Amino acid sequence: MKELEEKILSEGVAIGTEVVKVDMFLNHMLDVGFLQRVGEEFRKRFAGEKVDKILTVEASGIAVACMASPCFDYAPVVFAKKAKPNTMTEGFHSAEAISFTKGTVSCFVVSEKLLKPGERILILDDFLAHGQASLALTELIAKAGATVVGIGAVIEKQFQGGAQRLKERGYRVESLAVIKKIEDGNITFA
Amino acid sequence: MKELEEKILSEGVAIGTEVVKVDMFLNHMLDVGFLQRVGEEFRKRFAGEKVDKILTVEASGIAVACMASPCFDYAPVVFAKKAKPNTMTEGFHSAEAISFTKGTVSCFVVSEKLLKPGERILILDDFLAHGQASLALTELIAKAGATVVGIGAVIEKQFQGGAQRLKERGYRVESLAVIKKIEDGNITFA
Repeated sequence: MKELEEKILSEGVAIGTEVVKVDMFLNHMLDVGFLQRVGEEFRKRFAGEKVDKILTVEASGIAVACMASPCFDYAPVVFAKKAKPNTMTEGFHSAEAISFTKGTVSCFVVSEKLLKPGERILILDDFLAHGQASLALTELIAKAGATVVGIGAVIEKQFQGGAQRLKERGYRVESLAVIKKIEDGNITFA
Repeated sequence: MKELEEKILSEGVAIGTEVVKVDMFLNHMLDVGFLQRVGEEFRKRFAGEKVDKILTVEASGIAVACMASPCFDYAPVVFAKKAKPNTMTEGFHSAEAISFTKGTVSCFVVSEKLLKPGERILILDDFLAHGQASLALTELIAKAGATVVGIGAVIEKQFQGGAQRLKERGYRVESLAVIKKIEDGNITFA
């Protein structure tokens, strides 16, 4: 997606060899008109696929999923929580996701009521790095007896291998911008 | 907002005397078409007000703010983070918010670059309870030298006094549903 690549180059900040900060439009401030076009692009990539629900994870993923929902006939958005809230008193599914960047393990939680057997679920997220978050989401979907339509990421950091890992497991992956390398403050797309 | 009150009664779950769970459309699963209408209602409530940016706090507030943004000429959404991320290396404003429900203190953080002196900022959030989260957001806005247009909440729990507290400080508060009492599984609107 050309507009996205241009935005990453003009508004993103490359840090070291692994991080690109896109706080100006995706991770802290949200460019909502742009995210609508991101949603339309996901619809094109997954054209013809029946999508019952969109699954993401808090926090930045929520914006991506919400702005895509109208393009998928207003499929409800479910966001996995990174910790079980006090008010989650009934059954829930959980899966662990390692964050290599933060050096932490998160437990993703989703209420059993919100993902149903047989439903077709599209995973959308802001970043695809090592793929651990997406893998945890596929695990939640499997535990619910639902089906993964595919995984859509706004920005893929190809060199961290997440897309490859997910494709090896048979999942369809669509990334709207694929970063091949981050070096000396420069970002190279695949 | 009649549709909202009906949704709270039909899909919400009252717990004890203080909690109403709205996981089916606002806090875990998101009814995006409904949230568009919530956004339109906020625009009506704040009709004629110039809004440069919408400020909210992760996680559920992001959906509310994003779906409202198109109704405010696509004002960019900024969401305060509940902890300083590793990648936030430059200047930021912070403010503490006590959560009476959780018995915890969160530190809300926003990058200095994203709120500018003189900007007119609308605060939007899912719930208004004791008002501590909104107060922390007004503090961030004050630290940035920007102006609070007002505070919009989808659901206000009137008996927890947040709206009163904010109004006493001179802020305009608009809540789309005002809960007066939660008792024996019943919800009473004001």
